[in-house]
Amino acid sequence: MSSKTPVVDVHTHMYPPEYIQILESRNDIPIVRSFPGTSDPRIVLLSTEVTPLKEAEAAAARGEAPTVSSLPGRPLTSHYASVAQKLHFMDTHGIDVSVLSLANPWLDFVDSDQAGGLAASVNAGFSAMCKAHPGRLFFFAALPVTAPTPVLLQTIADIATLPYCRGVILGTGGLGQGLDDPAMEPILAALAEAGLVVFLHPHYGLPGEVWGPRGGTTGEYGHVLPLALGFPMETTIAVTRLFLAGVFDRLPKLRLLLAHSGGTLPFLAGRIDSCVRHDAHLWKAAKTRRSIWDVLHEQVYLDAVVYSDVGLQAAIAASGGASSGGLDRLLFGTDHPFFPPLDSDEQGQWESVSMNADAVKNALGDGSEAAAAVMGGNAVRILRLYEEAAEKA
Amino acid sequence: MSSKTPVVDVHTHMYPPEYIQILESRNDIPIVRSFPGTSDPRIVLLSTEVTPLKEAEAAAARGEAPTVSSLPGRPLTSHYASVAQKLHFMDTHGIDVSVLSLANPWLDFVDSDQAGGLAASVNAGFSAMCKAHPGRLFFFAALPVTAPTPVLLQTIADIATLPYCRGVILGTGGLGQGLDDPAMEPILAALAEAGLVVFLHPHYGLPGEVWGPRGGTTGEYGHVLPLALGFPMETTIAVTRLFLAGVFDRLPKLRLLLAHSGGTLPFLAGRIDSCVRHDAHLWKAAKTRRSIWDVLHEQVYLDAVVYSDVGLQAAIAASGGASSGGLDRLLFGTDHPFFPPLDSDEQGQWESVSMNADAVKNALGDGSEAAAAVMGGNAVRILRLYEEAAEKA
Repeated sequence: MSSKTPVVDVHTHMYPPEYIQILESRNDIPIVRSFPGTSDPRIVLLSTEVTPLKEAEAAAARGEAPTVSSLPGRPLTSHYASVAQKLHFMDTHGIDVSVLSLANPWLDFVDSDQAGGLAASVNAGFSAMCKAHPGRLFFFAALPVTAPTPVLLQTIADIATLPYCRGVILGTGGLGQGLDDPAMEPILAALAEAGLVVFLHPHYGLPGEVWGPRGGTTGEYGHVLPLALGFPMETTIAVTRLFLAGVFDRLPKLRLLLAHSGGTLPFLAGRIDSCVRHDAHLWKAAKTRRSIWDVLHEQVYLDAVVYSDVGLQAAIAASGGASSGGLDRLLFGTDHPFFPPLDSDEQGQWESVSMNADAVKNALGDGSEAAAAVMGGNAVRILRLYEEAAEKA
Repeated sequence: MSSKTPVVDVHTHMYPPEYIQILESRNDIPIVRSFPGTSDPRIVLLSTEVTPLKEAEAAAARGEAPTVSSLPGRPLTSHYASVAQKLHFMDTHGIDVSVLSLANPWLDFVDSDQAGGLAASVNAGFSAMCKAHPGRLFFFAALPVTAPTPVLLQTIADIATLPYCRGVILGTGGLGQGLDDPAMEPILAALAEAGLVVFLHPHYGLPGEVWGPRGGTTGEYGHVLPLALGFPMETTIAVTRLFLAGVFDRLPKLRLLLAHSGGTLPFLAGRIDSCVRHDAHLWKAAKTRRSIWDVLHEQVYLDAVVYSDVGLQAAIAASGGASSGGLDRLLFGTDHPFFPPLDSDEQGQWESVSMNADAVKNALGDGSEAAAAVMGGNAVRILRLYEEAAEKA
């Protein structure tokens, strides 16, 4: 590895082959289905896609070939499961290191008695990928959240020994009642003690009724509302519930990496702080506890997947405590393989990547030390990547 | 009026006496109720307060005096209905001009056949207040959204002739199906043609299930989740639905003033833009339409009620188009009479006001031209306040 600060992608997903097999065997969302006349099978993940899925299945049962615009979900291209494709994507975009994670909905839907075994299998698969490309690939492990707590705790103990594992990816559902469920706290405590960063990622969005008649199943607004608004709002709600439950006070070693630059947390932190200060039911107790700003400055990292320099600047400013300008807490990511380009070849440059890379350049200056920190230096330090990457040097 | 740029509060509410009488006569939320042993009646507005209201009413029926912490809603102090109190609040905080608006939930719940008459009465009440204090008070009128469309259109024609009316305050419900309901478009068109700014304000928040078992009716997290997150997310969803429906394209004269600095729109605009660019169902048509950034730069104003310089800087940056840095689209507000101080006298300085005023000073420099624009200069220009204020000079 050269002396140049590497570019690290901390937000990059895969569905390993054993996971895709599970989706292919299912009858409900999340599901992988093939339809006549299309080159790739479709992967259908979101609850807003139930109706398009049923309509496409009914059409297929009648022997009709659906039009592309009526197909549910998105094409399951090689970008979702192929390591070779991931490495090609990295090379195309000048990414030196990727920290892989299973994509949503992870193992949230798996039967309780199968979850532990499947987690071990998925995590072993990621370990093998990383071992085959040392220094280029690390991963956030998947947790069997539907399994009994002892199985979950044993999984955490196991993954902490895996040489390329640097944390876990976690949805907002926790064990089914959200992350502020008291039953979740021993899990978060074990992750904090093991020094495993929790990459908090949305999947469930918001209840469909908030999108209104035209934003729901008619498809008039595409996937924009659940993805552009539902996802970041879900993340913001989850971390605020953790904050109000006092989890950050009780687990000072807990470190969260928040997807999509914290959802909307950087922008809303001031309002959260004010609402706590003006709530007669909370303020007296809150005075002795850390504020949402303390949490942002000390216990939260943000990825830089926010698609604008406006958002990136706000994320940096919100992360900046007394001893830092916040530049040390932002980490570049791509969200690959989601958001492929519509107007150009998927093997070339992706606009979804350049939007985020350009935001860093525009906000911090092309080639600046600050930009290098966000593009990779922070990830190397926070996720201790040189401990393994050195092997490759 | 002196040559100094006035300080203008564009986000400041009142419930006129005739409106409070309606709330006193009701049996459901929104409601005003007195409980034994408390000095002020309680005003209960939010759907999350249904259970606390019922419990307090049951306790009162048993002859029990509830503790303050178990009371639903908030105390209905003189700050909600008294013009003298509003002027005292303005003087205390150095506010020269207030643009009053009816507080939520406005006339959203009123029977269809009464809505038109009640709107006329409320708006006449606001007109009289402003006339009694010329140059110090203006107002955003209330609309009878449950009334038949001809009544609504006549109301718009009527308020456009009122000398102190500068726009309307509107919730996100529209006529009941949201603002992107095609039936709402003639209303928005009439407002745009009349040059009336639409102050878009939240009330309904998000469905209670998103707050989880501890954030709901148990009261463990107070009102923080629905107020700090639900309100701004509701606003963001509403304006994004308007955008996706093409309303801004079809009504280029439409001007929205978004409460709470746009909810979360400044932070999420990049992600909205990216999701449109990567949605196979939308992108082809979207290429010929204006982007969410165009809307922010040309058709949306943001109040400065965001409680942090992080949020304020993001709001300014998001508002800045090619010809402006965005400083011309932000307007100071207080959200009075909500968020009174808990630790000091309500007749003195309010921390909720100083948090927003300090954010302007910290972000733009105390006494700077930019700060003066946000604190009042922009409101004078955008809302044409000197046309009336000159009478007082």
